[in-house]
Amino acid sequence: MTRTDLNELRKDPLLGRWVAVLGKSKTPAEYQLPPHEQPETSCILCQGRESEAPGEIMSLRAPGSDAAAKKWSTRVIPNFAPIFQVEGDLGRRGDGMYDKMNSIGANEIIIESPEHNSSPEDMGLDQMTRVITTYRERMSDLEKDPRLRYTLIYKNAGRDAGAVFSHPISHLASTPVIPKRVKEELDGAKQYFAYKERCLFCDLIREEMRVGSRVILETRHFLAFCPYASKFPFEIWILPKQHQCAFQDIRPEETEDMALMLSSVLKKLKTLFPGLSFNYFIHSAPNRVPRKDHWHTLGEDFHWHLEIMPRFLKTSGFEWGSGFYILPTSPEDASKYLREV
Amino acid sequence: MTRTDLNELRKDPLLGRWVAVLGKSKTPAEYQLPPHEQPETSCILCQGRESEAPGEIMSLRAPGSDAAAKKWSTRVIPNFAPIFQVEGDLGRRGDGMYDKMNSIGANEIIIESPEHNSSPEDMGLDQMTRVITTYRERMSDLEKDPRLRYTLIYKNAGRDAGAVFSHPISHLASTPVIPKRVKEELDGAKQYFAYKERCLFCDLIREEMRVGSRVILETRHFLAFCPYASKFPFEIWILPKQHQCAFQDIRPEETEDMALMLSSVLKKLKTLFPGLSFNYFIHSAPNRVPRKDHWHTLGEDFHWHLEIMPRFLKTSGFEWGSGFYILPTSPEDASKYLREV
Repeated sequence: MTRTDLNELRKDPLLGRWVAVLGKSKTPAEYQLPPHEQPETSCILCQGRESEAPGEIMSLRAPGSDAAAKKWSTRVIPNFAPIFQVEGDLGRRGDGMYDKMNSIGANEIIIESPEHNSSPEDMGLDQMTRVITTYRERMSDLEKDPRLRYTLIYKNAGRDAGAVFSHPISHLASTPVIPKRVKEELDGAKQYFAYKERCLFCDLIREEMRVGSRVILETRHFLAFCPYASKFPFEIWILPKQHQCAFQDIRPEETEDMALMLSSVLKKLKTLFPGLSFNYFIHSAPNRVPRKDHWHTLGEDFHWHLEIMPRFLKTSGFEWGSGFYILPTSPEDASKYLREV
Repeated sequence: MTRTDLNELRKDPLLGRWVAVLGKSKTPAEYQLPPHEQPETSCILCQGRESEAPGEIMSLRAPGSDAAAKKWSTRVIPNFAPIFQVEGDLGRRGDGMYDKMNSIGANEIIIESPEHNSSPEDMGLDQMTRVITTYRERMSDLEKDPRLRYTLIYKNAGRDAGAVFSHPISHLASTPVIPKRVKEELDGAKQYFAYKERCLFCDLIREEMRVGSRVILETRHFLAFCPYASKFPFEIWILPKQHQCAFQDIRPEETEDMALMLSSVLKKLKTLFPGLSFNYFIHSAPNRVPRKDHWHTLGEDFHWHLEIMPRFLKTSGFEWGSGFYILPTSPEDASKYLREV
């Protein structure tokens, strides 16, 4: 091992988590992907089989089309086996020395395409714009429920990422508590703001644009880069360049630009790693409607973003026991491979 | 769904993490396990092939045996591809707005048995006692290095748990920082202690013994139970009943009793789920030798324990994005199945 090949430890500025970055990066060809599965050609989520799925919550349809004609572009339905139930009160209570509450919330499936084998990133910008519009509409709607503190939009693509359907879908889970992972980001961003009087994410954007080596793509309103202390190799974050705390505040021109960014980045990732399983999720400010006082702080110190997590690796007792991650490919090299696609 | 089948949310008292517990528990037969693989019969870690592996760090041998006779019971060697390097200084420094340091530390493989297909839990109490003694000796030794803040002992059993070798081994990783997951436990336990003036773990033991429904096994010195707000179904924690902050302070009679406890619990888990992949790891107080002042507080408010994590489920974007987990089998039911094996 030459001196430049030494591994190094890097600290994530948001969560305070350390990762080990290998001095000699693994190339994309050195990652083992599972054999490509032959997907089915139709499922219960496809256009034409609406009656077999639970009742529709919302849909986007081409203007002027007749609902009875079933010509939808995106469609939202309740989860088949919901973990959280919509009806009831929170019922917070003790249980011996412990604490519990009712499992109040929402679980929805966002069908991203009427066709089984067409992903929105391959259907042109209009379809991806509709997907992002659907995300925004559901988040805005669920924010009105004072029992719900947070709505997580997430996607599981491929079996190794926990996908059950091969139809292109995303998921939504609204919970009556702020999930721990989100709380940690809020706390980390708040600490940074208290010290610097600047938004951590705005600083990250400026730093990444200054350095350049981790940037994958820049559009008019968004920046995509591989974070300095990523958890997984080829992890990608997409942030709005202008400060914005809540995803549902996204404006129409930003929605289109976000569609361009997300489509481009997903296509790059899938070109580099055909058949790769990945997750993505949006981290946004917690629901603000019933809590106007919190919102004033959160508005300044939090900045929504989308995180894409490729799932090449099996996590072991090391990651689960320590919360420490190992990056076989440095973010600089990962970003270079993605840029050059 | 009847009223008693309602899902509920439970809060983990240590980390403040919420989990959803399904009202209707999945039975052990309903979990899908991967097909049982035919293991090889020999590998580079086996007795007789010592010269093919990196140099020995320590070994336990039967009294009176000649080292040249190669009759070892347990053996510790460096990792084949170490992430952390033993030589050098920490070199903490800035990198633009970020922070990094050299990857100083130790990575060791603890070979738990000279035979390829004999696990210590199946070889009688003496062998498991030797494994635990080996853990203790390595942790005590590494605690002396003032650059190292923490030593994590962990095991990956089965491919779905990240195992690379099928020979029975554990791993050890010493890091120059306290890993995030351990830091969170220390912080949670400290907060509880500040509020209650009692050790959280001692309270957990008393509560679990009072309630009884989550207890799997009690021995003279140890208690095994399924935690109230487990992250994964059939998760098991083993704690010393008497307060003890650091694993390496374990006494000889406790070591034997710990061997009995760990063997029994692993055998129960493997009987219920043949071929199951699982991880376990020990959470203990951070290294105390160079930091006598910290140790006085940690001694009171932290309590070492071993966590066993069965790996049935693929984590999805929900878990990674939220830090929120879903338990298809309640800890009470899981504990009942394990008790009755």
